[in-house]
Amino acid sequence: MPHLLHLDASVDPRTPSSRPVTAAFAEAWRGLGADHTVTHRDLQADPPPHLPDAALHWAPALRTQAETGAEVDDVVQRELLAELLAADVVLVGAPMYNWSLPSTLKAWVDHVHVLGTTVPFGELTDQPLAGRTAVVVSSRGAGYAPGSPTAGMDHTVPPLALVLGQSFGMTVEVVTLELTLAGRVPAMADLQATATAQREAAVARVQELARTLG
Amino acid sequence: MPHLLHLDASVDPRTPSSRPVTAAFAEAWRGLGADHTVTHRDLQADPPPHLPDAALHWAPALRTQAETGAEVDDVVQRELLAELLAADVVLVGAPMYNWSLPSTLKAWVDHVHVLGTTVPFGELTDQPLAGRTAVVVSSRGAGYAPGSPTAGMDHTVPPLALVLGQSFGMTVEVVTLELTLAGRVPAMADLQATATAQREAAVARVQELARTLG
Repeated sequence: MPHLLHLDASVDPRTPSSRPVTAAFAEAWRGLGADHTVTHRDLQADPPPHLPDAALHWAPALRTQAETGAEVDDVVQRELLAELLAADVVLVGAPMYNWSLPSTLKAWVDHVHVLGTTVPFGELTDQPLAGRTAVVVSSRGAGYAPGSPTAGMDHTVPPLALVLGQSFGMTVEVVTLELTLAGRVPAMADLQATATAQREAAVARVQELARTLG
Repeated sequence: MPHLLHLDASVDPRTPSSRPVTAAFAEAWRGLGADHTVTHRDLQADPPPHLPDAALHWAPALRTQAETGAEVDDVVQRELLAELLAADVVLVGAPMYNWSLPSTLKAWVDHVHVLGTTVPFGELTDQPLAGRTAVVVSSRGAGYAPGSPTAGMDHTVPPLALVLGQSFGMTVEVVTLELTLAGRVPAMADLQATATAQREAAVARVQELARTLG
């Protein structure tokens, strides 16, 4: 039963860039057979709360006495962790807003990056998610291609790669579509054809990834 | 009437690292005289919602017809913008969580980074916040000093510097305290004295900054 966790975080209900691409992945995944199941968590429609307490950075057994005594609310954390750990593949719609993650996606990250639970610490020496794949669909309004003057200004994909790749041990596949503001910003008008080509290439790439990973 | 906007975002109510430093700045600021006023916005105690709609990235006059028709809720945005624009100095407690911003602080950023309002676009050609100062108190559990192998893994300060410095035109002063997990992580035990020295240096630095800026 290959299972997909599909996360979306775009806050644009009218002209989203990442959502059509993640939807294409999910559709291709489902097309592989009835045993290819999907959990879709829309972080915008049903936003996770901000992390309520730093104690939740740690597995229950690793919390200090003061933290344990605080009886922090971990209902959301347990739900998000169960969903993540049940997934064979994690698909993340990750639009760049103001050079970093949407706050909803960051709240998700802060709930699931847990020392001693998903990240080795203390008695947990292996990575429970090691070897699984995360597909990050990175959409951004302008261009941040490697080698361009703005390349270092992307603070969306790198922290996701640290969490999903380094901490969790997942294989991280990044599918990028840039220049998504080309149709809106007058100074970018001549980039519209490039943006369209990138969007089409991104859809083709995730369809291929779904077939490979499913 | 020099006015300070003081933001805190730490989610650790027991052993915060950034809060004592921002508090030292605010105390020094108030000590300059009764005319040195402070608005304290605790993003953890009173968290801003996630940005409800991408239309809020744009000033009302720049929104598309579809966005205008959506009648998005901008009450929080207007309140946060008024608070920011009224400040002579902005003090940001910015702990690093999982290599990037707390989701509460990102939600604040996404509400106040507005093309045509705080950021030049269209008819707005100047930066309303140009020349003012932002003091960013960056606390992080491990070490990310320039030149260290982990230097490039800080995705907390760089996006703040892009928003506050590049987009808003503010002068950004960064005060860093690192190794804040030295007292908790066994492998970091021998770094506790360094962490203490950095904390004390950070307090001294913000007291000096308050006197200079106030």
